[in-house]
Amino acid sequence: MTIFAIIGHLAATTGGFNLNDMPGGAGRMDVLCRSVNASLFLSHDLRRDVTVYLVLLGGTDAPKTILFSGEKIRSLNPDERSAGALIKKALELPVGEEFRESTRGVYVRRGGLSRLLGEHAFAVLDEGGEDVSSVASFPEAFLLSDHLNFTSEELDLTKNCHKYSVGPKILHADHTITVLLNVLDRRFIGQG
Amino acid sequence: MTIFAIIGHLAATTGGFNLNDMPGGAGRMDVLCRSVNASLFLSHDLRRDVTVYLVLLGGTDAPKTILFSGEKIRSLNPDERSAGALIKKALELPVGEEFRESTRGVYVRRGGLSRLLGEHAFAVLDEGGEDVSSVASFPEAFLLSDHLNFTSEELDLTKNCHKYSVGPKILHADHTITVLLNVLDRRFIGQG
Repeated sequence: MTIFAIIGHLAATTGGFNLNDMPGGAGRMDVLCRSVNASLFLSHDLRRDVTVYLVLLGGTDAPKTILFSGEKIRSLNPDERSAGALIKKALELPVGEEFRESTRGVYVRRGGLSRLLGEHAFAVLDEGGEDVSSVASFPEAFLLSDHLNFTSEELDLTKNCHKYSVGPKILHADHTITVLLNVLDRRFIGQG
Repeated sequence: MTIFAIIGHLAATTGGFNLNDMPGGAGRMDVLCRSVNASLFLSHDLRRDVTVYLVLLGGTDAPKTILFSGEKIRSLNPDERSAGALIKKALELPVGEEFRESTRGVYVRRGGLSRLLGEHAFAVLDEGGEDVSSVASFPEAFLLSDHLNFTSEELDLTKNCHKYSVGPKILHADHTITVLLNVLDRRFIGQG
């Protein structure tokens, strides 16, 4: 099992956003959609052993967390609108403190980063971290930020998390996930 | 300079397609949009040393080739619709045998793969190729297919091209580009 959590600092927390304006009105929801794609898609297959959390911090109903289960999901296509439509549908549901399924394999609840950090042992993927190419063993869960840097509060919450980077250039969150999964794919084969 | 060319076997060659239906009516144009993103974007920056060719083979006006110049382009955002809108605008232009600029850094011409193969020394990124992790030096140009396999005609045209793969799992074209660029980023730093 590999877990990714991506913080959407401006991302909508209600379902009224327009799928045609995910970078604007939906608060860079496009970044989160691409991160879902990078986490779950193989060619003509899905990564059934990956779970993705989207921590949505924008708008009036924040924070909310959406979970995409690679094991359970059925109706996801690789284009941004497909993930966006599932997020929109999840955000249209009345929701409480526990995860509620909105479509097969997609769940939503109230709550944000601090709760999530108590549930999994996260490492942070960030430009200043240890290069993954020299790492002997990895944790199960990885936290990334969207197009914005971690806030000081988030840095404080994650100050004891190990930090990893994926190489010499600073990449988008979804590209970072793709590179890390390639590293993990190679390790798994090496151990097989 | 690094060059990527992606074949869109069903991709629209006229500008009438709907940006809300790129996977359907535009012939999996979403795959090509994500490949442009993977080729050109760094975090808060563009890869100015990368050029992308999209070889569009769908519809009644095929083949056409669109060129995205990382060096010249200005108005590209990372979401799929942004690249899609630039492709649509290019395909709305009357076009001949030579590249014509449609927006800053985006060009379109008639012609397809055979012409392009005569212009650059392409290697092919495909699942059966040599693993990039053990390659000492790389060519400048890489050819990929979209969600469909190369046709028998394309295989024949590329039979003398070297083949590379990016790891043990079969990935989408855009994820393959992301992994390869990370390998090249690491090599370049290593040589620096």
